Amino acid sequence: MCGIVGYVGHKDVTPVLVSGLKKLEYRGYDSAGVAVIEGNRIAVVKTVGKLSSLEKKLDEYTPQGYVGIGHTRWATHGRPSDVNSHPHQGCSDDFAVVHNGIIENYLELKEWLIHEKGHVFTSETDTEVIAHLIEEYYRGDLVEAVRKTLDKVNGSYAIGVVSVREPEKLVAARKDSPLIVGLGDGEHFIASDIPAVLNHTRDVYLIEDGEIVVLTKDNVQIINRDNTPVKREIYHVEWDAEAAEKGGFDHFMLKEIFEQPEAFKKTLTGRIQNDKVKFSEFEFTKEQVQNWKKIFIVACGTAYHSGLVGKPLLEEFLRIPVEVDIASEFRYRDPLVDEETLAIFISQSGETADTLAALREAKSRGAVTLAITNVVGSSISREAHHTLYLWAGPEIAVASTKAYTTMLIAQYLLCIYLAQVKGTMPQGKAEEILSALQLLPKKCQEILANKDAFLEAARNIKDAQNLFFIGRSYDYHIALEGSLKLKEISYIHAEAYAAGELKHGTLALITEETPVIAIALQQKTYDKTLSNVKEVKARDAFVIGLAMEGDTEILKTVDKVLYIPKIDDIVSPVLAIVPLQLLAYYAACERGCNVDQPRNLAKSVTVE
Amino acid sequence: MCGIVGYVGHKDVTPVLVSGLKKLEYRGYDSAGVAVIEGNRIAVVKTVGKLSSLEKKLDEYTPQGYVGIGHTRWATHGRPSDVNSHPHQGCSDDFAVVHNGIIENYLELKEWLIHEKGHVFTSETDTEVIAHLIEEYYRGDLVEAVRKTLDKVNGSYAIGVVSVREPEKLVAARKDSPLIVGLGDGEHFIASDIPAVLNHTRDVYLIEDGEIVVLTKDNVQIINRDNTPVKREIYHVEWDAEAAEKGGFDHFMLKEIFEQPEAFKKTLTGRIQNDKVKFSEFEFTKEQVQNWKKIFIVACGTAYHSGLVGKPLLEEFLRIPVEVDIASEFRYRDPLVDEETLAIFISQSGETADTLAALREAKSRGAVTLAITNVVGSSISREAHHTLYLWAGPEIAVASTKAYTTMLIAQYLLCIYLAQVKGTMPQGKAEEILSALQLLPKKCQEILANKDAFLEAARNIKDAQNLFFIGRSYDYHIALEGSLKLKEISYIHAEAYAAGELKHGTLALITEETPVIAIALQQKTYDKTLSNVKEVKARDAFVIGLAMEGDTEILKTVDKVLYIPKIDDIVSPVLAIVPLQLLAYYAACERGCNVDQPRNLAKSVTVE
Repeated sequence: MCGIVGYVGHKDVTPVLVSGLKKLEYRGYDSAGVAVIEGNRIAVVKTVGKLSSLEKKLDEYTPQGYVGIGHTRWATHGRPSDVNSHPHQGCSDDFAVVHNGIIENYLELKEWLIHEKGHVFTSETDTEVIAHLIEEYYRGDLVEAVRKTLDKVNGSYAIGVVSVREPEKLVAARKDSPLIVGLGDGEHFIASDIPAVLNHTRDVYLIEDGEIVVLTKDNVQIINRDNTPVKREIYHVEWDAEAAEKGGFDHFMLKEIFEQPEAFKKTLTGRIQNDKVKFSEFEFTKEQVQNWKKIFIVACGTAYHSGLVGKPLLEEFLRIPVEVDIASEFRYRDPLVDEETLAIFISQSGETADTLAALREAKSRGAVTLAITNVVGSSISREAHHTLYLWAGPEIAVASTKAYTTMLIAQYLLCIYLAQVKGTMPQGKAEEILSALQLLPKKCQEILANKDAFLEAARNIKDAQNLFFIGRSYDYHIALEGSLKLKEISYIHAEAYAAGELKHGTLALITEETPVIAIALQQKTYDKTLSNVKEVKARDAFVIGLAMEGDTEILKTVDKVLYIPKIDDIVSPVLAIVPLQLLAYYAACERGCNVDQPRNLAKSVTVE
Repeated sequence: MCGIVGYVGHKDVTPVLVSGLKKLEYRGYDSAGVAVIEGNRIAVVKTVGKLSSLEKKLDEYTPQGYVGIGHTRWATHGRPSDVNSHPHQGCSDDFAVVHNGIIENYLELKEWLIHEKGHVFTSETDTEVIAHLIEEYYRGDLVEAVRKTLDKVNGSYAIGVVSVREPEKLVAARKDSPLIVGLGDGEHFIASDIPAVLNHTRDVYLIEDGEIVVLTKDNVQIINRDNTPVKREIYHVEWDAEAAEKGGFDHFMLKEIFEQPEAFKKTLTGRIQNDKVKFSEFEFTKEQVQNWKKIFIVACGTAYHSGLVGKPLLEEFLRIPVEVDIASEFRYRDPLVDEETLAIFISQSGETADTLAALREAKSRGAVTLAITNVVGSSISREAHHTLYLWAGPEIAVASTKAYTTMLIAQYLLCIYLAQVKGTMPQGKAEEILSALQLLPKKCQEILANKDAFLEAARNIKDAQNLFFIGRSYDYHIALEGSLKLKEISYIHAEAYAAGELKHGTLALITEETPVIAIALQQKTYDKTLSNVKEVKARDAFVIGLAMEGDTEILKTVDKVLYIPKIDDIVSPVLAIVPLQLLAYYAACERGCNVDQPRNLAKSVTVE
């Protein structure tokens, strides 16, 4: 959940590292730092706080050199502080290390280094043991020292290492954390993610687990842990660096909310032909689909919420029981997964550590695995048997928006595809849903055109300490995602409840100071939901309803209504979340919160 | 979710009604009222607020008579107010009605009565239409007028009706709301629940859906809606009225927490013989159990939380997929239930409307249904194919404690029983779990003896506005129930998270002002949970750990530890919740909340 960069070449290294880190700040921003080979010493500049704090510090003193590493941190072991910032060094200051991941056995290694080997530690981090181990094992060969170190550590890592003993070299390695190498002309890069190198090159190597990379300005060598060379094909990045910029919007989040109509089109593109769904990425036979007795959907956070919508869809049209599970729970509960199971893993980044681990667990039990992700070449996409890509474009804001809605669309498509292959999809129904899906870009645009209504509603709730979202069936799933959006960027303690469940305890929290957002889109449960709204109105809550255009009945019960355009109930979740994304966004702005980089959070969660 | 009483006999009616309502106040306390036949008029006294407010008003004027009805209300349609309090009357004041339930088509009926029939309404309630309809249809026969009225209304109800036109008669009826008749000597009673009549008689009739009862002081007649008489056997109540009193404790909730060791024994009694589990209530054959391909556990609120613990148990030992569902969601989502399904319904009262409706839905789809409930003769127990009783004794406090823990024990027993019948229970494992279960009363006693530790911890959290519970696997299920306890009685907005899920958004809410209660009892996930605790510590949260006696490791990470005695991981949930019940109880007391009758809540939720 941190970002690492590294450079070896002919340019002034410090500005290169800082510009790379800027593209990775979405991965964490608790602290930042760089280490540069400056003559016969390593100059380290690091500080708690965002990258802008590091830039200030670098204005006072800018290390000079052509080889260096950099880091932007999301704290796990040890609170955010100067001393816990990366890069870390051993006792002698001859080595410097940046690390993304967690060293699980660091306490044990630390005690061994202190008591048996006399090392002195300065930070509370797990990472510092790597620097001391390399120092301990160094016998004139940096790569050998790194390899010995990695033999000792358990856990996940992408690391970058430099040393004054071999001042023209950069060594990197990965296990369960992302790492790429950028290939320039007389210069080479390492980074946690491709955008960090796009200003310099579009040719990259995707490094795999267990590999070590040795970079000089003229050469890149990938080797296995047993020292055998690895041949890797060059991956040429097609997409545009501009696409990852804010382009006119105040925040990435708002930009990404407004990109949704376009993203919907991309997700749908080329996948519907004559009312049939097809994917270029994979194909199943009728026998394969008929063989599945159970489907699991496993994910975390927002992606998990998208899976909740997938379950009733798949159950209705495939008539196979579907279980949706939180990835961190799935792994440890001995789930009933076997060869007759299809296991679907959803992750925007494709690097979510819990989801990746759950994928490995399901695979080891014989399940057919299918990833739904936005990032080509991500770990999850590489390890799953099959991958369905969202094609939603890079998502930079920590609060996921277009990834969520395109995850929903991907699941509608997947469901229709599988049911058509199995022969259980009523053709009229497929046509109905596919037409509705194709209307989504236009209808989403209509919601976005009406954004002032959501700003106004945000002003109604901005001073709330606590708030509840309620709804039934699909509306409940949207309530969960709406409440998460509000939580993560506005810090209002919002919680979602199945509307019928509130009276079993939580109604005690409802007073005139607790706004309630009631989602009443599903016709099947409309009356029941309105009964529950009356229960909270009877406790004087200020209620904002989310309803389908033309619904005037709800006006009798709620204090304010937000509308979405009329659309088939079954695909309504895709539109329903959009007003709630905007509500959360404007509420956060009104409260003066940092929308794109919320307190304590990082974009992709690559630790458990 | 209201309580109704009625009396016809030879005693002063007002004190009889009030003492009956006192026993039903757990069902709602937004308002209360009585209607008494006083000579040739009906005297109605009613007021918003608890029963004590009504008693004050009755001190000013006490209606005199021998026939009357009473009501204690939990608001659904129309906010708590004097005018919305029951009993309700028509235009002429000749009739009075009390009602528990919801009339779904009341708006339509109300408009018809106003526009077509010229009736004038005074309240916002659904109930008032019943009074007006009876008045409209009265042609000299009260029973006939009631029957015609019931033909018109949709929804759920238990009603009591009196009229000056037939001043020695009390008419009652039920559909989907509980109603009993108490049989005295020259006096008869109606009530929503048995305790209301226990001071007068132990002989009762359990009234069934669709039945109308006509009571005079010398006679009780039960008839069907088509006017045919019904013969009902007398149910003689064995249990002690004293058992429903507070007996030395400040609150029913505390009393019920302390009753748990005794309740555990009762739930276990007679059900374990030679390491085999047997139930006197039902028996399954191996063929029956082998036939089940899927198990559903359906419930609401606290009972739902108990079902979450049941799922991994049943999956592990029966190797059948188990789905746990919220009753109000289950009904509306076309669940994959068929003849090869066992559907388990859990409800303390056995009257939970959503759970009852879900039971009917599952039955109609052919499932074998099994109820787990505390109340003999309750609707759910009568309608399920099989019932497993908790035998936990009456639970009066709104916040459920001993019902929850005995629901867990009941599910351990059920799981072992079914797995033994099926032949999939390793005998060593059965012995291990059964021994652990039998240790629970003693170990729970040890926790209770240490109650001051929980009072002290409650003082640490009492000023929090928001708070999080975290845990993994069983510890997560306990976190959910612990957070609900704190919510419903202390009004602190507590929320539970799977520990691995917090970092996917909600971590943004964690600051030094947000205490976190971390449950770290499961050895399998202990290290991972502690990693998550470190994440919240890094954001300065005050963390209270809940750990197993002897765990000193956790002291390095958390600010304070609460311990439970060492016990097998698998049954640890039963003990784990007890400290959290006490924590919620003491936090509520410290905050000056009304523990036994929390704001907005009622004991058993007999509306959807």
